[in-house]
Amino acid sequence: MAGSKARFEVADDARDHVSTLYSRTRDRSLHLVEGLAPEDLGLQSMEDASPAKWHLAHTSWFFEQFVLDRFVPDYRFVDERYLYLFNSYYVQAGARFSRPHRGLVSRPTVNEVLDYRHAVDAAIDDLLASASEEAFPEICELIELGCHHEMQHQELLLTDLLHAFSFNPTRPAFRAPEPLAVQSRAETLEWCAFEGGLVEIGHDGEGFAFDNEGPRHKVYLEPFDLAGRLVTNREWCAFMEDGGYERAPLWLSDGWAEREAQGWTAPLYWFEQDGEWWSFGLRGAQPVDPDAPVTHVSYYEADAFARWAGARLPREAEWEHAAETVAVDGNFLEGGHFRPRPALASGLSQMFGDVWQWTQSAYSPYPGFTPPEGAIGEYNGKFMVNQWVLRGASCATPRAHARASYRNFFHPHQRWQFAGLRLARDA
Amino acid sequence: MAGSKARFEVADDARDHVSTLYSRTRDRSLHLVEGLAPEDLGLQSMEDASPAKWHLAHTSWFFEQFVLDRFVPDYRFVDERYLYLFNSYYVQAGARFSRPHRGLVSRPTVNEVLDYRHAVDAAIDDLLASASEEAFPEICELIELGCHHEMQHQELLLTDLLHAFSFNPTRPAFRAPEPLAVQSRAETLEWCAFEGGLVEIGHDGEGFAFDNEGPRHKVYLEPFDLAGRLVTNREWCAFMEDGGYERAPLWLSDGWAEREAQGWTAPLYWFEQDGEWWSFGLRGAQPVDPDAPVTHVSYYEADAFARWAGARLPREAEWEHAAETVAVDGNFLEGGHFRPRPALASGLSQMFGDVWQWTQSAYSPYPGFTPPEGAIGEYNGKFMVNQWVLRGASCATPRAHARASYRNFFHPHQRWQFAGLRLARDA
Amino acid sequence: MAGSKARFEVADDARDHVSTLYSRTRDRSLHLVEGLAPEDLGLQSMEDASPAKWHLAHTSWFFEQFVLDRFVPDYRFVDERYLYLFNSYYVQAGARFSRPHRGLVSRPTVNEVLDYRHAVDAAIDDLLASASEEAFPEICELIELGCHHEMQHQELLLTDLLHAFSFNPTRPAFRAPEPLAVQSRAETLEWCAFEGGLVEIGHDGEGFAFDNEGPRHKVYLEPFDLAGRLVTNREWCAFMEDGGYERAPLWLSDGWAEREAQGWTAPLYWFEQDGEWWSFGLRGAQPVDPDAPVTHVSYYEADAFARWAGARLPREAEWEHAAETVAVDGNFLEGGHFRPRPALASGLSQMFGDVWQWTQSAYSPYPGFTPPEGAIGEYNGKFMVNQWVLRGASCATPRAHARASYRNFFHPHQRWQFAGLRLARDA
Amino acid sequence: MAGSKARFEVADDARDHVSTLYSRTRDRSLHLVEGLAPEDLGLQSMEDASPAKWHLAHTSWFFEQFVLDRFVPDYRFVDERYLYLFNSYYVQAGARFSRPHRGLVSRPTVNEVLDYRHAVDAAIDDLLASASEEAFPEICELIELGCHHEMQHQELLLTDLLHAFSFNPTRPAFRAPEPLAVQSRAETLEWCAFEGGLVEIGHDGEGFAFDNEGPRHKVYLEPFDLAGRLVTNREWCAFMEDGGYERAPLWLSDGWAEREAQGWTAPLYWFEQDGEWWSFGLRGAQPVDPDAPVTHVSYYEADAFARWAGARLPREAEWEHAAETVAVDGNFLEGGHFRPRPALASGLSQMFGDVWQWTQSAYSPYPGFTPPEGAIGEYNGKFMVNQWVLRGASCATPRAHARASYRNFFHPHQRWQFAGLRLARDA
Repeated sequence: MAGSKARFEVADDARDHVSTLYSRTRDRSLHLVEGLAPEDLGLQSMEDASPAKWHLAHTSWFFEQFVLDRFVPDYRFVDERYLYLFNSYYVQAGARFSRPHRGLVSRPTVNEVLDYRHAVDAAIDDLLASASEEAFPEICELIELGCHHEMQHQELLLTDLLHAFSFNPTRPAFRAPEPLAVQSRAETLEWCAFEGGLVEIGHDGEGFAFDNEGPRHKVYLEPFDLAGRLVTNREWCAFMEDGGYERAPLWLSDGWAEREAQGWTAPLYWFEQDGEWWSFGLRGAQPVDPDAPVTHVSYYEADAFARWAGARLPREAEWEHAAETVAVDGNFLEGGHFRPRPALASGLSQMFGDVWQWTQSAYSPYPGFTPPEGAIGEYNGKFMVNQWVLRGASCATPRAHARASYRNFFHPHQRWQFAGLRLARDA
Repeated sequence: MAGSKARFEVADDARDHVSTLYSRTRDRSLHLVEGLAPEDLGLQSMEDASPAKWHLAHTSWFFEQFVLDRFVPDYRFVDERYLYLFNSYYVQAGARFSRPHRGLVSRPTVNEVLDYRHAVDAAIDDLLASASEEAFPEICELIELGCHHEMQHQELLLTDLLHAFSFNPTRPAFRAPEPLAVQSRAETLEWCAFEGGLVEIGHDGEGFAFDNEGPRHKVYLEPFDLAGRLVTNREWCAFMEDGGYERAPLWLSDGWAEREAQGWTAPLYWFEQDGEWWSFGLRGAQPVDPDAPVTHVSYYEADAFARWAGARLPREAEWEHAAETVAVDGNFLEGGHFRPRPALASGLSQMFGDVWQWTQSAYSPYPGFTPPEGAIGEYNGKFMVNQWVLRGASCATPRAHARASYRNFFHPHQRWQFAGLRLARDA
Repeated sequence: MAGSKARFEVADDARDHVSTLYSRTRDRSLHLVEGLAPEDLGLQSMEDASPAKWHLAHTSWFFEQFVLDRFVPDYRFVDERYLYLFNSYYVQAGARFSRPHRGLVSRPTVNEVLDYRHAVDAAIDDLLASASEEAFPEICELIELGCHHEMQHQELLLTDLLHAFSFNPTRPAFRAPEPLAVQSRAETLEWCAFEGGLVEIGHDGEGFAFDNEGPRHKVYLEPFDLAGRLVTNREWCAFMEDGGYERAPLWLSDGWAEREAQGWTAPLYWFEQDGEWWSFGLRGAQPVDPDAPVTHVSYYEADAFARWAGARLPREAEWEHAAETVAVDGNFLEGGHFRPRPALASGLSQMFGDVWQWTQSAYSPYPGFTPPEGAIGEYNGKFMVNQWVLRGASCATPRAHARASYRNFFHPHQRWQFAGLRLARDA
Repeated sequence: MAGSKARFEVADDARDHVSTLYSRTRDRSLHLVEGLAPEDLGLQSMEDASPAKWHLAHTSWFFEQFVLDRFVPDYRFVDERYLYLFNSYYVQAGARFSRPHRGLVSRPTVNEVLDYRHAVDAAIDDLLASASEEAFPEICELIELGCHHEMQHQELLLTDLLHAFSFNPTRPAFRAPEPLAVQSRAETLEWCAFEGGLVEIGHDGEGFAFDNEGPRHKVYLEPFDLAGRLVTNREWCAFMEDGGYERAPLWLSDGWAEREAQGWTAPLYWFEQDGEWWSFGLRGAQPVDPDAPVTHVSYYEADAFARWAGARLPREAEWEHAAETVAVDGNFLEGGHFRPRPALASGLSQMFGDVWQWTQSAYSPYPGFTPPEGAIGEYNGKFMVNQWVLRGASCATPRAHARASYRNFFHPHQRWQFAGLRLARDA
């Protein structure tokens, strides 16, 4: 959130900006669950995932907890019980309901959660209309944070739902299947060279960013090359056919142990049918598209693939340094494809959208990083161990949520996100 | 099912009997889920329990699998996928969906399952109207079995739903609370004496029974006494106050290990509020009724209580021998109380209804027991190890499902059924 | 221990009897561990098993705890810390060291434990020489109990050691291999008929027995047949070749789940080598002897085999009723074979020795059973749930420990004992 | 091992150097186990730890596998079975015995393992005496690697033994207790300032180093301060008294979860006795020395402490940059204290010895890192995920094993090493 206050000094512009951001973000959440049954919205298939209904409620809780309760005099919570039910992990915001049991909360029902959303929306509208000039910058900052928070949950809502649907042998589709894209430049692989040296990375204070993206700071980089596009399913199949999943020396030790324990032989959601590889996705089960970027692979698999390919994963500083040279454009949630698509452009392409890109960097604090005081400071900082950084954005990321400095992070064994990879090598 | 064929020899009587039994049974299932949200019907809180929706579907699958597919020429299944989704444990009936993941099957939705039920009902109606005289007795026998099967699942639907609701901190009530009963003779405990000797137990061939209730056979019993009523919550509180949950010598070794591992200090669903014991039930959270029978206790707890009380649990043969002396009457599902109630009558009371009664008998085959051939033979026989027999019936058991020879069975650590106890002692 | 006091009324005879029993029993324990390394004696391969060194110490603790501390004025324990370290499960005798960590107790060393044994032996000798006439019968009774307790642990010492050795890929042999027996009548199977009726079982008060073997009581038996010998490895191989381990309908439901979870495809310790079945035993790895009784099978496997063979397991009352007709003779520990051997005699043979025989009876209290007061009452009674009765004795059982009324018991999934089976059928 | 070949060009010097290093290293291993019983040497208390006997054998296997088998013509392994038993994790060197079962291998016995060591020593002596000039540099390099490998295992032998002993309620001491040190400057905390900038870290090619310590490379550092000494037990007690183990906001999220799951309330091996904190160590149980450095803390605890103290853990580049300014001196294994001691000197002290120091750096490959080909390349590279770097050395580290560029690494939850911390802060 570095520098965000400055952005909201002119009140009317800020009001318009934040108000529009708020309504678009909130509407998008509702749009995503259109056409789903109440039964779908309650599913929780693992502790890492949450029901769609919970996402709808928790993102509203965020506004109540961090904005309305603080800035609306004598604010009365829509339902006191929701404070407990829909707090995720903010220990300084009070007790929380048990995470693995979120799928057992049939009440409030979906309709009651939608009522909750409407009530929060009305209160936020009122607050934006009536807030004092003094409080206004901070209110805007927090509402903006809440919107970006909700965008994160929009992506999670989709990946969590896909994970839950994957347990259903009838293979329900979130959206109707669409034909595979036909054009592609994916077969050839182009390398883009970077000189490195003493560069700067991190958020520079323009526009929104999470606290973990700053401060901007110096990093020394050796010269390196970055692949012009993401690794494709065709390349992944070559890895599989070459025994990629059976050759321990290609793998990190922890990765091999996980692969053995889980019996991995292909990316998550892949299955064989009549001798052909298919995958299950938000558009149901479809044959694997050879030119599309591979997705739903763990860090361990990405790392093993890179070793097999005689390359390596990029460091996050390399990735960000390169990403600053291209526009933030790509296959995002708004495109409505809900799955990664083949690269079309030449040069350094697919830096944003399609799939998140594993880096070889552990998720650690930047030099000088300090989280904000209070519960809001738990947003990012307390996860800075055991997770690895992913960069870019995916086909389930809202466009406004993508930027060069964005640091996504997951545990190296996790596969249910739209996570793939791009190769790098020493120059 | 011993002797059941004979009952259906006169076709018209049989048709009436079976047709009425079928429609009443099927209607009761629908009646039970009235007023519940689709969100409620999908909940599965542990592997032992299933979603209400699954119970509604599985009981229909039973009729398709064992009646319609066999007796309707060229029968077309309502949905082939349901054969896999809604088979419970009949390995000879084909592959089954993973039991612990039943709660992840949002599709078919509740409405689709209700459609499934209607289609099956229509097909059964047709079959009963058109079946050949030759096939008729067996059809009737199997439909009757399916109805009793559905009655079992009606009870499970309630206990599974209660278990799921118990995870919700808002404590949803299946039915609105009702005031506690006021009259009771529960405080005094009367013992009823039985002489024993060489007696007979087991189903005698009149009326419906499951295969595991026969054959009727001789058992030698020493003289014994049976308590005139069930153990009450007041008595259970005395056990607790006397350190019942903290004194290892009162417990079986496996029981103590389970108590330690689970941290049991009271029956399931009990909680303390302002220094008073409350319990959660189908009518929401209410103060524990001291005169009502204790329920939701494991075999281990029941056994420890009996030892503490200087008594023991009855053997199943003792119980059945005694039960043959009283009418099958009590607080059943149809009474609409949905919770155990205090004893009112004197003499040997509460033998049926209120709560199932743990016996000290392992669930084993009677001498001469042989299960039927084929998948239907998996109904009972394959569970004859590691489970303990409960007798009687509960406030969630349909009246038609209660009889002296009925052998219910659960693992000794399980507590989510309406299970309590009656004391016995050597004469 | 019913009636045991009467046996020790004539003091000098009793002294001789008990003194001889004591020294023979204690010597046998030492004899068993001759030739083993200190490294061997500390092994614990699972929670169910204990190190040989622990058995040597615990059996000494038993005499200190239940005899010396009670009858020797101002008795000083050899080492106070041993009270904690070597109590097994007697909660009324005080706190105990964690069972799964027994293998981590390198100190006391083997030599220190042997010193412990010698000190206890000397104290028992002194006590026998000096005990008052009044205390004498009870002292004798408890020493006799301690000896039978130690005999149980002699068998466990062997089965636990075998289990530990089985993890060592170099396959150490407890005793050098011996050639297979050549003579056998095992190929033919003879059935022995019994009329049943109202019979009596249970210890009758002559000679030593554990509390759980009484009281003697009436049981009604239908007519039945018992196989003349134990099931052989040849028969077991036929079961395996007929898909016995792959056909779910042959198995109890819990048994099939265990078989799936553990991947059982043969008895414990069997392995294939050059297309032939071998097994690992106390005499190292040897080819499976087709005529010898099968051993190291669980209750679940025994039950599945019996179903496959069109028979069933005997009930314990049937077995005991039949066993009262034959002499207590067979292949016991003293024979020094340390493995089951083929049947030689005709008629009802192998009732004792070779392998324990699974029955279909749950381990439950006999009518009128009451355990003694105090810690000693924990010996048997508190295990009367979840375990199944085995009858007979094995090649690792001391001869003096075998009798018709003996009730051995283990959980149905356990396989590391010398446990096999004999078939029964309804007449 | 970068640059190590150059060191061995002059044959006679190299022979002397390597021969001396070899005999000293091998002797030290034997010296460490003097006075221990065979029973002690077989203990394995968790999967992370190994029996002392295994360490003695595995370090010999290393020489057989990577030196003797390669350079001795027609080399015959001492025992072919040891190749399987004593390979640790080198998948390219063949199959391995199951790690969690190392404690179950009673055979070979301790004496047989000592024989194994002698045979390997003799073969290495022969090889050093007879190797061709051409092969000599590589032989020396590999023997040197094997010696440093053995030094690592000497430290592990001690920490693994301590862990095993900690399960024994009699608290065996590896060495007799010694009185606490009396002099100390630990109470005051001095900060040492460093300017940072574009610096170099990594092994520079002089002397032995593991592959993971290079290549030397540029890193940009912001100005920082480093504490002049390690965090003491007194400071740790202040953290505990201030609720350090009860305040979730001080902890990383994964750390708090681990603390909850494990019930941590103090460092490993601490226990309260009569209101005072004691700890168990290689010299048995002793009162906690307030001036000595805290040890046996996880990364999670170290990180929480630093946050509580308003500081942070150093980055590994900061630590190494600072360490290059001081001599490699301290409380090492050879000092014979076997426990951390209070700081005595002023300025930047305790950089080496006493306890390893957690850094906030994930264990990742340096830019340009490439492991050697073949099994030997598995030494370090395949562990470069999920582990965190520790720097310095401990009271259980051989002096020759300590250097500024050394990268030790463990998982953030592990506590059985001599691991403590030094504070850092932004300048």
